[in-house]
Amino acid sequence: MSLADLSPAELSALHEELTTRYEELKPAGLKLDLTRGKPSAEQLDLSNELLGLPGPDHTVDAAGVDVRNYGGLQGLQEIRQIFGDLLGIPADQLIAADNSSLSIMHDSLTFALLHGRPGGAPWARLQARGETIKVLCPTPGYDRHFMLSEALGFELIPVDLDVDGPDLDTIKKLAAEDPLIKAIWVVPTYANPNGAVYSSEVTRELVSMPTAADDFTILWDNAYAVHHLTDDEIKPVDVLGLAAEARHPDRVFVYASSSKITFAGAGVSFFGGSKTIIDWYLANLSKRTIGPDKINQLRHALFLKDADGVRALMRRHRAIIEPKFAAVEEILADRLGSYEVARWTEPQGGYFISLDVAEHTAAEVVRLAKEAGIALTPAGSAYPYGKDPADKNIRIAPTFPPLAQVRTAIDGLATCVLLAAVTRRLAQ
Amino acid sequence: MSLADLSPAELSALHEELTTRYEELKPAGLKLDLTRGKPSAEQLDLSNELLGLPGPDHTVDAAGVDVRNYGGLQGLQEIRQIFGDLLGIPADQLIAADNSSLSIMHDSLTFALLHGRPGGAPWARLQARGETIKVLCPTPGYDRHFMLSEALGFELIPVDLDVDGPDLDTIKKLAAEDPLIKAIWVVPTYANPNGAVYSSEVTRELVSMPTAADDFTILWDNAYAVHHLTDDEIKPVDVLGLAAEARHPDRVFVYASSSKITFAGAGVSFFGGSKTIIDWYLANLSKRTIGPDKINQLRHALFLKDADGVRALMRRHRAIIEPKFAAVEEILADRLGSYEVARWTEPQGGYFISLDVAEHTAAEVVRLAKEAGIALTPAGSAYPYGKDPADKNIRIAPTFPPLAQVRTAIDGLATCVLLAAVTRRLAQ
Repeated sequence: MSLADLSPAELSALHEELTTRYEELKPAGLKLDLTRGKPSAEQLDLSNELLGLPGPDHTVDAAGVDVRNYGGLQGLQEIRQIFGDLLGIPADQLIAADNSSLSIMHDSLTFALLHGRPGGAPWARLQARGETIKVLCPTPGYDRHFMLSEALGFELIPVDLDVDGPDLDTIKKLAAEDPLIKAIWVVPTYANPNGAVYSSEVTRELVSMPTAADDFTILWDNAYAVHHLTDDEIKPVDVLGLAAEARHPDRVFVYASSSKITFAGAGVSFFGGSKTIIDWYLANLSKRTIGPDKINQLRHALFLKDADGVRALMRRHRAIIEPKFAAVEEILADRLGSYEVARWTEPQGGYFISLDVAEHTAAEVVRLAKEAGIALTPAGSAYPYGKDPADKNIRIAPTFPPLAQVRTAIDGLATCVLLAAVTRRLAQ
Repeated sequence: MSLADLSPAELSALHEELTTRYEELKPAGLKLDLTRGKPSAEQLDLSNELLGLPGPDHTVDAAGVDVRNYGGLQGLQEIRQIFGDLLGIPADQLIAADNSSLSIMHDSLTFALLHGRPGGAPWARLQARGETIKVLCPTPGYDRHFMLSEALGFELIPVDLDVDGPDLDTIKKLAAEDPLIKAIWVVPTYANPNGAVYSSEVTRELVSMPTAADDFTILWDNAYAVHHLTDDEIKPVDVLGLAAEARHPDRVFVYASSSKITFAGAGVSFFGGSKTIIDWYLANLSKRTIGPDKINQLRHALFLKDADGVRALMRRHRAIIEPKFAAVEEILADRLGSYEVARWTEPQGGYFISLDVAEHTAAEVVRLAKEAGIALTPAGSAYPYGKDPADKNIRIAPTFPPLAQVRTAIDGLATCVLLAAVTRRLAQ
């Protein structure tokens, strides 16, 4: 029965029941962590072959270049080919780098700030004149995108992101009007945290829309391109092809990595774009490094073999994490469903479930959970500046803990969600 | 007999002899490369054990943390301990990062530009007001330092660097007068390219001297700290200790790496400084990455074991490269010595020999050598903006080619040096 339909007496009874249940959680001494989108040890074990590769006799890449020495700024051809096949991007329009795509995001934005990106002047020059560079942030979104942008002095402008895609009308209006809006963050596949997927149609609009800034940039973070949770293994949208068709070939910066494919901390990251963008990035990168860790790229190419090798590996990941997502959805439905106080996503891929609790209770839910030994990402972290206007969104990351812990944590979380909702209703 | 003492007839005869000798070089179809300071394949082989490490069963560091997953921004304790012991820096004042110390130089300067370093405002703010940030460049020096500084918009101010150290009087005068001089590049041990070593006394002056800029920074690139070519294995100067004593604890940024210890392209790099500097760097770094490649750090810790392990490995490097340095010095002395047209360093460590040829002939020597199939770094590359005012300096990097090729290349180079000198003298 919906919480809204309960009588005051029924509410009070429920409150008492939930308080008892919550108080029982504490002595259990839980230490559960649903904060970060980290693969579990069981997932990491899938790639342990990497730990002995390339092996002592393997010192050259497919082209015969010694991977141990300096050089090779763009990264190994063979690893660019594998990820190019997966992402639908020609290998020569990809750069293979070190372990962190966040680093490539940082560096590409820093290069745009200090040196200007193709089609525009250095953004820092505008900042120096007292202007504020702005970036559109479909929300809920990825907290590290927001923190990076903020650190670079950008103003974060939230726009709504639904599971079917972002609020295009608002995006088009803002981008067309304001030349200081220089970028938009996009996680096109199984977005963090609500699992949104950007369709070809939505993507076409984004790459085609008139923008007041000539150097408007789509920061296309395809972190979960192959991270399917169902048999419907959707193919990445050909964002660079669509951008070229729309005569904005240089609008898109593509980011990807093997972090949640092989090892989260020791994978290979990628940057993609038009030839112009790639040349620009490499020219700036050449001041920063002589080349990436080519041995790690060779190691990955030997282990993954080809795009199908990656797809097969991702199915093994799915076998481990799908039950965790199913458990979250099952327990939330079981505990919260009838009360109609919360909504949650049922993502088709990626690493997160986005939970909307009763308005103005998310921070309280996180506090309650923490006291009971269940760590959650701070409420609002999926919003620019950490400010969720409705204080209702909580990001759940179920991949890291073992399944039994996920069940315990979500059951405890459900108690907190209900308790906070009932408490607030009683106080009104 | 010195070239200066030769009669016109003797000069002409020598010119004819050298021309013949030079023309004989060309049909040999040489393809020799003395350009970059790269380890040879034989040197890289010394670390091939790394290619199979850490091995499939080794997934945690000494503290029990899973090295495959995200995190650990400062890098593995055990690898920081090894390099801390070598550099004389406490492990908690070191950050261990990925494969390129040049990247740390880039990032630390970029952070100073955009966010300001402790003790100062963002340098980009001064640039925006039309001011020019300046950096002192002891020359001859490392071309990548200069290119990086130039790319960041800094003015490069050359100051003389002798093998005993830099022109301190000029440095002190300039740094005291001009608040826009924000930094000085220092390669304190076996400097690139002239092998200069900064003594404790010189270092004390640099960390003590009054500077007009409160945020003046010594960019202390100790790339060759353990790269000895003699039994006199000098110990690194305790630059951070001296800076603290001088009450300028935050003046120094220390850079180092294992690039020329293990694998040039796949080593571990380090950043050192006061606790304040380390905290500042980590705070900025946290926006750029979740952590370094910890597996590669574990791999290195397992292979190197401890500081003595590194020292033993460096002696094996020395056994390979010392004969190449000896060959260069022997052939240069043999071919050029009596003519008194050139001077060269006899470094006690590092990767380079700095050759000064007759004034206004270095570019011509490089051109002649190139036509004969001997690739040299462009003349002037050891000087800011690539401009050697006397056009006399050539950097020789003898480590990469096999010994026989080094001999052939240096003999050919000697012919070019003499030919250019004699030609110029005849034209005067």
